[in-house]
Amino acid sequence: MPATERVDLVLLGFGGVAKRFVELLEARRARLPFATRVIGVATARHGCALSPAGLDAPAAARGKAVAACHDAACGRPPRDAFELLARAAAAGAEAGAGRRLVVVENTPYGAADGRPGVDHVRAALDAGADVVTANKGPAAFAWPELRDRAAAAGARFRFEGAVLDGLPVFSLVRDTLPGVAVRAFRGIVNTTTNHVLSAIDRGRTLDEAVAEMQAAGIAEADASHDVDGWDAAAKTAILANVLLDADMTPHDVSRTGLRTVDPAAARAARAAGRAVKLVASAGRRNGSVTAAVRPVELPGHDPLARLDDTAKGLSLDTDLLGTIQITKSASGPDHTAYALLADLVSLHRP
Amino acid sequence: MPATERVDLVLLGFGGVAKRFVELLEARRARLPFATRVIGVATARHGCALSPAGLDAPAAARGKAVAACHDAACGRPPRDAFELLARAAAAGAEAGAGRRLVVVENTPYGAADGRPGVDHVRAALDAGADVVTANKGPAAFAWPELRDRAAAAGARFRFEGAVLDGLPVFSLVRDTLPGVAVRAFRGIVNTTTNHVLSAIDRGRTLDEAVAEMQAAGIAEADASHDVDGWDAAAKTAILANVLLDADMTPHDVSRTGLRTVDPAAARAARAAGRAVKLVASAGRRNGSVTAAVRPVELPGHDPLARLDDTAKGLSLDTDLLGTIQITKSASGPDHTAYALLADLVSLHRP
Repeated sequence: MPATERVDLVLLGFGGVAKRFVELLEARRARLPFATRVIGVATARHGCALSPAGLDAPAAARGKAVAACHDAACGRPPRDAFELLARAAAAGAEAGAGRRLVVVENTPYGAADGRPGVDHVRAALDAGADVVTANKGPAAFAWPELRDRAAAAGARFRFEGAVLDGLPVFSLVRDTLPGVAVRAFRGIVNTTTNHVLSAIDRGRTLDEAVAEMQAAGIAEADASHDVDGWDAAAKTAILANVLLDADMTPHDVSRTGLRTVDPAAARAARAAGRAVKLVASAGRRNGSVTAAVRPVELPGHDPLARLDDTAKGLSLDTDLLGTIQITKSASGPDHTAYALLADLVSLHRP
Repeated sequence: MPATERVDLVLLGFGGVAKRFVELLEARRARLPFATRVIGVATARHGCALSPAGLDAPAAARGKAVAACHDAACGRPPRDAFELLARAAAAGAEAGAGRRLVVVENTPYGAADGRPGVDHVRAALDAGADVVTANKGPAAFAWPELRDRAAAAGARFRFEGAVLDGLPVFSLVRDTLPGVAVRAFRGIVNTTTNHVLSAIDRGRTLDEAVAEMQAAGIAEADASHDVDGWDAAAKTAILANVLLDADMTPHDVSRTGLRTVDPAAARAARAAGRAVKLVASAGRRNGSVTAAVRPVELPGHDPLARLDDTAKGLSLDTDLLGTIQITKSASGPDHTAYALLADLVSLHRP
């Protein structure tokens, strides 16, 4: 028997990943071991909606205005995510036992300080809700605080989609490797830069490769977040915080981006069977954790050397099982949406 | 809070892996979320012991005679594994609630029909005990029956160590990839043959390589079980049974061993950046599952191509996340012992 009979979802942020999550949830609904409904949606620019009896999230994912999903019977629409959270939690408390509130946080990453994600997760945990997110901000900027806050509230905070788009990493270590200590890791965690490096190997310049990625919708208009290693640094901070019990932010990660890569040298390495990759890594030295993102020329036998284009993955140095690698051949927003679903299921495993 | 307060273990088979498991359990005891004790040990040639209050398993692992571990206060020693199981279950029932019996089955693999492992698991499940094992026999020869028998008894049957020595495969799919369907897999699952192929690449003949493995204690005196692909076929049957919902035994796996490999061709492939590997694979075609073990020349970019010596791993073709690979750089009996511990912990996760 599932531990929870009914799960009420509040969606904070309603962009592409959140919409794909709603579609995936709808497609898989019949196979889930618990009933779900979406009772609230908050957006920054398109209003908020609360409907304690459940709103038509698939219609909203297909384009129905969020404001039109609000149930006027429960008063005016919430002003923002925080008011939505408070009112959704109060509605759940009124409705009584057998309901569990889960907040699905997918607002844009706040590169400077993780906000608003950090604030949303904090408010959700304090309201007693579980949180799942693919937003890097909360675990990259406030892991120890949010971990402890979740424990104090008896709530869970999951973010499998924040680092490797649904490839299991945190659940891998937590659920399948009990008692195993991770001593260090190395990984390829950013799609745009890996794609760019593969394009450089095929003869492009950095600028040409970035322009191609932008035209394909893979890289953002301002590519510096990827190219200068900031996205990888955020993911490295999350991995170090969770796997190595660190207390760091992206600003604590030593960071060298792609602009230092010599295309001719990268192509020469490739011709010799090696590969230049933007490697995220961290390990414990003298009791403290150091982390870095930098281009590294990998030998051909390194499992990370074969991860080209949108492939990504992680190599874990463990105490009991030597080195374990988990990799995937491709990535995309559908995978990130799946990560949210996997996190949701993990919260309600019988 | 753990679901179970106290776990009573019965060890069927007490060879190298079981002894390492006992040592690992002892070393990790303080960190487990439940109390354990070993209340019985059965061996084929060195007698059996039952001690409902717990026996000194670490002493037995260090060489104390099994027969000397028996508690005479509970009558004469059990004659065999089946009597031990029945008496251990009865002792647990007498002792009342809060105890959970777990059978750790590690008798030798029965290549013809999976016995005695299949019989041991059947008897254990029927007695209401959970089972963990690194023995390939039960899941290779009787998966649907034992799966259904466990469900009917409200018991669990786990065998993470039977295929990849502690590298998570079954728990990976079960616990970290909820709702993901595996459509096919390819893997390198046998240490001896992979080691032999790496040695052939370095200039050895098949016979020289096998002799080296035997001298190093990696291959058995009769190497045909490995060299002719029988070990890999058993592991392939397990993977196909569990991941693809098949109903097959090792005899149903199309099997070509290493004797067909031309060493010169293998070395030429290696020189060209490719690699000949003994690949275990299965997939669903027209509604039925077909499985094979055979030498395959892999392209250099294949993640399996880089798994040399005692490395091993699996590539899973999934419906939602594309292709996922999980690999490890080395294998050994300590890893198999860890798999038993991981299975034990997974049974009693809070």
